[in-house]
Amino acid sequence: MQESTKSSFVEVPGVGKLDVGRVKRRGLPEVIYSEHKTPSEVERLFSELMNHSPVVLATRASREHFEPLRAIPSIEYHERARIIRWMATRGEPIGLVKVLCAGTSDIPVAQEAAITAESFGSRVEIIIDVGVAGIDRILSMREELNRAAVLVVVAGMDGALPSVVGGLAKVPVIAVPTSTGYGASFGGVSALLSMINSCSPGVSVVNIDNGFGAGYQAHVINAQSRRACD
Amino acid sequence: MQESTKSSFVEVPGVGKLDVGRVKRRGLPEVIYSEHKTPSEVERLFSELMNHSPVVLATRASREHFEPLRAIPSIEYHERARIIRWMATRGEPIGLVKVLCAGTSDIPVAQEAAITAESFGSRVEIIIDVGVAGIDRILSMREELNRAAVLVVVAGMDGALPSVVGGLAKVPVIAVPTSTGYGASFGGVSALLSMINSCSPGVSVVNIDNGFGAGYQAHVINAQSRRACD
Amino acid sequence: MQESTKSSFVEVPGVGKLDVGRVKRRGLPEVIYSEHKTPSEVERLFSELMNHSPVVLATRASREHFEPLRAIPSIEYHERARIIRWMATRGEPIGLVKVLCAGTSDIPVAQEAAITAESFGSRVEIIIDVGVAGIDRILSMREELNRAAVLVVVAGMDGALPSVVGGLAKVPVIAVPTSTGYGASFGGVSALLSMINSCSPGVSVVNIDNGFGAGYQAHVINAQSRRACD
Amino acid sequence: MQESTKSSFVEVPGVGKLDVGRVKRRGLPEVIYSEHKTPSEVERLFSELMNHSPVVLATRASREHFEPLRAIPSIEYHERARIIRWMATRGEPIGLVKVLCAGTSDIPVAQEAAITAESFGSRVEIIIDVGVAGIDRILSMREELNRAAVLVVVAGMDGALPSVVGGLAKVPVIAVPTSTGYGASFGGVSALLSMINSCSPGVSVVNIDNGFGAGYQAHVINAQSRRACD
Amino acid sequence: MQESTKSSFVEVPGVGKLDVGRVKRRGLPEVIYSEHKTPSEVERLFSELMNHSPVVLATRASREHFEPLRAIPSIEYHERARIIRWMATRGEPIGLVKVLCAGTSDIPVAQEAAITAESFGSRVEIIIDVGVAGIDRILSMREELNRAAVLVVVAGMDGALPSVVGGLAKVPVIAVPTSTGYGASFGGVSALLSMINSCSPGVSVVNIDNGFGAGYQAHVINAQSRRACD
Amino acid sequence: MQESTKSSFVEVPGVGKLDVGRVKRRGLPEVIYSEHKTPSEVERLFSELMNHSPVVLATRASREHFEPLRAIPSIEYHERARIIRWMATRGEPIGLVKVLCAGTSDIPVAQEAAITAESFGSRVEIIIDVGVAGIDRILSMREELNRAAVLVVVAGMDGALPSVVGGLAKVPVIAVPTSTGYGASFGGVSALLSMINSCSPGVSVVNIDNGFGAGYQAHVINAQSRRACD
Amino acid sequence: MQESTKSSFVEVPGVGKLDVGRVKRRGLPEVIYSEHKTPSEVERLFSELMNHSPVVLATRASREHFEPLRAIPSIEYHERARIIRWMATRGEPIGLVKVLCAGTSDIPVAQEAAITAESFGSRVEIIIDVGVAGIDRILSMREELNRAAVLVVVAGMDGALPSVVGGLAKVPVIAVPTSTGYGASFGGVSALLSMINSCSPGVSVVNIDNGFGAGYQAHVINAQSRRACD
Amino acid sequence: MQESTKSSFVEVPGVGKLDVGRVKRRGLPEVIYSEHKTPSEVERLFSELMNHSPVVLATRASREHFEPLRAIPSIEYHERARIIRWMATRGEPIGLVKVLCAGTSDIPVAQEAAITAESFGSRVEIIIDVGVAGIDRILSMREELNRAAVLVVVAGMDGALPSVVGGLAKVPVIAVPTSTGYGASFGGVSALLSMINSCSPGVSVVNIDNGFGAGYQAHVINAQSRRACD
Repeated sequence: MQESTKSSFVEVPGVGKLDVGRVKRRGLPEVIYSEHKTPSEVERLFSELMNHSPVVLATRASREHFEPLRAIPSIEYHERARIIRWMATRGEPIGLVKVLCAGTSDIPVAQEAAITAESFGSRVEIIIDVGVAGIDRILSMREELNRAAVLVVVAGMDGALPSVVGGLAKVPVIAVPTSTGYGASFGGVSALLSMINSCSPGVSVVNIDNGFGAGYQAHVINAQSRRACD
Repeated sequence: MQESTKSSFVEVPGVGKLDVGRVKRRGLPEVIYSEHKTPSEVERLFSELMNHSPVVLATRASREHFEPLRAIPSIEYHERARIIRWMATRGEPIGLVKVLCAGTSDIPVAQEAAITAESFGSRVEIIIDVGVAGIDRILSMREELNRAAVLVVVAGMDGALPSVVGGLAKVPVIAVPTSTGYGASFGGVSALLSMINSCSPGVSVVNIDNGFGAGYQAHVINAQSRRACD
Repeated sequence: MQESTKSSFVEVPGVGKLDVGRVKRRGLPEVIYSEHKTPSEVERLFSELMNHSPVVLATRASREHFEPLRAIPSIEYHERARIIRWMATRGEPIGLVKVLCAGTSDIPVAQEAAITAESFGSRVEIIIDVGVAGIDRILSMREELNRAAVLVVVAGMDGALPSVVGGLAKVPVIAVPTSTGYGASFGGVSALLSMINSCSPGVSVVNIDNGFGAGYQAHVINAQSRRACD
Repeated sequence: MQESTKSSFVEVPGVGKLDVGRVKRRGLPEVIYSEHKTPSEVERLFSELMNHSPVVLATRASREHFEPLRAIPSIEYHERARIIRWMATRGEPIGLVKVLCAGTSDIPVAQEAAITAESFGSRVEIIIDVGVAGIDRILSMREELNRAAVLVVVAGMDGALPSVVGGLAKVPVIAVPTSTGYGASFGGVSALLSMINSCSPGVSVVNIDNGFGAGYQAHVINAQSRRACD
Repeated sequence: MQESTKSSFVEVPGVGKLDVGRVKRRGLPEVIYSEHKTPSEVERLFSELMNHSPVVLATRASREHFEPLRAIPSIEYHERARIIRWMATRGEPIGLVKVLCAGTSDIPVAQEAAITAESFGSRVEIIIDVGVAGIDRILSMREELNRAAVLVVVAGMDGALPSVVGGLAKVPVIAVPTSTGYGASFGGVSALLSMINSCSPGVSVVNIDNGFGAGYQAHVINAQSRRACD
Repeated sequence: MQESTKSSFVEVPGVGKLDVGRVKRRGLPEVIYSEHKTPSEVERLFSELMNHSPVVLATRASREHFEPLRAIPSIEYHERARIIRWMATRGEPIGLVKVLCAGTSDIPVAQEAAITAESFGSRVEIIIDVGVAGIDRILSMREELNRAAVLVVVAGMDGALPSVVGGLAKVPVIAVPTSTGYGASFGGVSALLSMINSCSPGVSVVNIDNGFGAGYQAHVINAQSRRACD
Repeated sequence: MQESTKSSFVEVPGVGKLDVGRVKRRGLPEVIYSEHKTPSEVERLFSELMNHSPVVLATRASREHFEPLRAIPSIEYHERARIIRWMATRGEPIGLVKVLCAGTSDIPVAQEAAITAESFGSRVEIIIDVGVAGIDRILSMREELNRAAVLVVVAGMDGALPSVVGGLAKVPVIAVPTSTGYGASFGGVSALLSMINSCSPGVSVVNIDNGFGAGYQAHVINAQSRRACD
Repeated sequence: MQESTKSSFVEVPGVGKLDVGRVKRRGLPEVIYSEHKTPSEVERLFSELMNHSPVVLATRASREHFEPLRAIPSIEYHERARIIRWMATRGEPIGLVKVLCAGTSDIPVAQEAAITAESFGSRVEIIIDVGVAGIDRILSMREELNRAAVLVVVAGMDGALPSVVGGLAKVPVIAVPTSTGYGASFGGVSALLSMINSCSPGVSVVNIDNGFGAGYQAHVINAQSRRACD
């Protein structure tokens, strides 16, 4: 085991050990978290990962991070989601992940979730601005919600949307609190607490602004549905 | 002024100074908060206040607090709301205060609010168990909500109900977080934060489990509507 | 119902769904929260709302947000309150909302409250610098306070002013904590906690620095008084 | 819609409105949360629900809550999990939910999760005492973990187990922090924060000690896998 | 120095080292904090201290703590203040410490402060129930307040009283937050924060419910005034 | 009273109401807190106060705040303490206030305290860098400490210095936590908590970084000593 | 590896998996944490461990936990430390661990640390009641402190003692915050924060009241010194 | 003693008192913390310390701090670790300190620890990017870990690595939480709490990002091993 273990990591000197065995072990590749890394560090990790995985993502990436990579064929930079993406091939998307967000300010986090799930192979739809202050917006979508295999619900401030959606949906709900808000929203803590205390069962929660984590788990659940049928 | 000031307080030796001028100054009498007071202390304060005000309330009162007072004619003990009440006379109730609560465990706080507002002269209706996990319960009441002059909305856990009600109502909403919940509900802090961060304007908030405070302000607003017409 | 619901929202592509039915449903129009929105996004939302409502407000707006809108006839930018306002017509203001603030640094929040209430049709008066360190300032206004239908009380630091005002007033008090202060004021949390724990009943609280929310609810209460007489 | 909405709720006077339409709407019945309810209240809700659903659960139930129900045929009381359960029929369990727990003190929460998922129809296995202080326990189960459709991972103290499991598993992980611990564990907050900040993607989190919520969502994901194949 | 240091401590085996040199070093004797000590431990420490100091105090003492000591001549137990006191002699009290408290529930803490200061030799007056909800009570005492050398102000809930008193007084104010309150009072934290953020200069703060600490420092300041004149 | 009250405040239009009666009422003038005020606002308040008080201070003042005032004869700007000061005359300083600080980074706060006390008429000495990591520094000053009428002790990080000084001194100790530190120092909260929980009696605490408040109260105590002898 | 891994754990059915390989892997045996376990569970784990290790400890054990074990030859119950201990043999203790505690209430935690280190083979000395309020107690021990290989310093309230000891000692300091204190001590959080922010380097910290953890690490460091010489 | 005490401190006027006796007293020199100090202040302290100690370190030093010192022979600036170092001589390094870090972003803190320990004379090895999401990286190093005398483990986010390492190692583990992370990582608080609650004994913790403190204590423990053998 020692040997196989060793060979599943690739050292990028001075930057880190890439977990290239993750595709085999977990079914999905390692993803680069760009914050606190220099463009050059991201570039070296990204290039190395391209040798090991058909999909490479760098999240929380600024335009500066994208610069040294832009010459790579078919690479994309999604500015609002702050994701750099390279896909060797694109298959037919599977299942359906729906991403809902409460307000305009929550859109970037919703897009991070959507692009993440899509990159790994899920079919994704995104619905914006369905906060509970105008409850009819979400109510008019009841049927539609249950066509998805899993829902990602993104909200800041009072974080009330996942409780309402959780009360309407038959499918799993992944709630994402955002740092949208002011005053006693405490950078998303109020929304996080509200979601963790949701009165609707069937809701679980990821970290504040963690669109990537929500999209990742939504894809795993969505893909899981498929795998079960094999 | 010195003199008139002095005469508006009555000393109950070793217990406190009753603010008997409050009826004149604020329009409503002082109310006894029974917690941390002995039955005998509550009894002395209650008896003294009966000389100065047509309505006397003791909140957070246990059955032990009620014991020494029970012989007083027409006194009542509301066990679930934990209120001892004495009213010299009862007039025609005015306006309409509606009290909504999200779950069964929130009922005592809702009743404290309802009895408080009613004691001061408001007409009050109480609606229980309309939490957002079954959103249709509250949606079916849209019209009904706006017949009230003011709404008191009581909820624990995710504290999401006031945001939904605030999005439906034309009238002021007073939100009351309750300590109902467990884990990261932190004795009502999660609900409080959710309400303070409500995405619906027109919602203001009182302390955790403070049914009395909500009922008091609801009555003041309700009565205010009346006064404006004189 | 489905249909009427749908028609009460107007999509502004890529920005959000405007809740243009809110005037009918809640009696007051949707308001644009400008923070985290680009000037162009605010401009598109603002222009669209002008088709649906006789009053349009954008709060937390910088001078940059105002720039693309300045050519609109009779539009105003209130710099200290950070509000962009357009009013089709102006009726006779109704009732009286009084806004009090404790210190000089609280003035912007007090003005946000005042302009909000005024825009919706309330008569508004603002009184600055009546903090409790010089208690005589507020005491000399006792009579005056009760001429209002509702009081908005704005304070930072120890947040003590609403408790004192609450002890003097017959009318509802909406307390607004501000982020004024330093050290252990925690960006307004100390003031918020103080107000939520007010020893004077009749006080309810909105979010830190939420002048808009306070002004909105003050207007609703003030207007409520009027409606009751019809 | 008004009508159908109304008929999906059944009033239990003075206790609450049962959401009996939930089975149709969400696919799973409402569950009774027993804490803060009297045995008599639980009994009335339980009996009513038996008319509407083939499975009835009461969670956080003490032996006192069970007493008035014990005569019901085939009712069970699971003491460690604190669940009262009644099942009209039992079908063949589907899929596989695995519940892991870090330490002995976490067993009650793990069992609450296991019995919940099992009651709704999932096949469930439970594995105890695989905390990271003796990492080999969990490592020897790598293969086994991925046979499940979903993993529930229960841990207190440092809450480190879900991160380790998340790094090994291909399937979704639902993390449940427990209040096990002392000192700065703050009743489970440390574990909750650790899990929300997990460095392994594919982990989402429910409330502290919320075995029910985790079991519920695990079943929904597990069942989802099945539904997808139909 | 080594030697004199050693002799200023007296070992009470298995209980602690009494700092009997403190009278000489700090001018005031060590005081026994009884909580978490057995009656027998308190008794041994108390008896030993009687050999070294003309005043011995045990604070936070229950009636059980007093039992083994009650036979000592001229010993006293102050139940509400929870202090056991023995004084060899009583001199003429010096200066004036005034202790104010906001509400009835704050009286025990106020009395702990009062008896502490009095035991060390200060003249003390106590004024109860002068909270800001009835502001005239404290305003009518303006002159009186400044006759003291130092004021101790005890309050829970919103902790607003010290700010008001601080705005009226010429003399130092020691503020004592109490754990009186409920909901978001967080056992006195709200009052503590309010006092630490007081908008009136000249206010400093001791720990929640720390009447002893306030009385101690008040006496030191009061005595300081005297010493300065020698 | 109304009249005299009114005349004790001077309106500076659009900026605030100066409490010019404070010299008479409290013995010390109002002080300008410059943060969040424009240089022009500070200038107008400062100039007005010069008509009413022999000493004018503006705290938290930047060099920009000083600019419009620099032409005033005998005005001073203390950069490290961030205080602008004007004194009409200087009398003989009275008593002795000693200001101690734990580390180099605490010096600005210590100087704010020192200059404040000195401005009001106290004799002040300042001792820097006597933190407990090198305990002999403070121990060598035992005698010296008790020559003061009051000690101000400034410390960040662990906030341990006031407890040590409190154990050595006969005189009152005012503790000032500073925001010096990193990581879990939480901007001074750790030091604040440590000081509030001091195991040495005779210590009271002001807000984080509140050198002004400490210097103010230290002067009041120091002056109090003098007044007592008249 | 699979196999050897498996054999290093022993299942105690329904209670847990004992990590009996820990003696070999880590050099020290697993220890039973008794809180939240029944006497019978502790008894079964304790008996099983006696087959695998020459020293067995159960911490946080009540007298009830000890009852079923008391017949075991040479078993001991240390009541104040709440430890049940069985040692097959006792060797010559090595090195020196010194345990200091600030106050009387900290003694149980200090004893838990002392007995833990002693049980594993360290020579241990315990020194009580050397808090910083009487600083000379600890100063008189300077020489003595450095005779130890490692110091464990136990304190509650302000948690200042480790900073002072850290400034005097050449050897590693393990700080243990205790829940001793009241008010804003927050069950030991204030002491924990103070210690984590210690201005003396060479101090590291374990959990609140975690005498066991401190004694364990102290022994490891002490033993480490020995091993280095082999 | 007075005299020798005095001579062990050297005043650097206006900056601080250098504790030059610390080498003798504690075995290691004082270290300059550069944050909040000007380059000139650091330069004066650094130069003075060079007269008293064979090793001088300035931590948290920017390139600006290094500028005035760069001409000093054999001085070094370690940019990533932010340390300025001067060593008069270099002896043979002793023992072995291993520094592990979980992710790329934790490298600067790990290097601060490594350079600190190395400067005082320890042999140091650093291992990067061995986080628990890819658990095999750390597992493959079991043997290697126990060759060290002490381990420093640096991690942010969930702070889970020290618990895993603590379960594998025979030697003391010093855990360092880092501020790496986002959302509810609260600048390292989540990692700190996780580490303080570690389920593996033998782990103690220093402040967030405090690589210096960890390196310092690791060296003391490592050196301690040596001293024990003399």
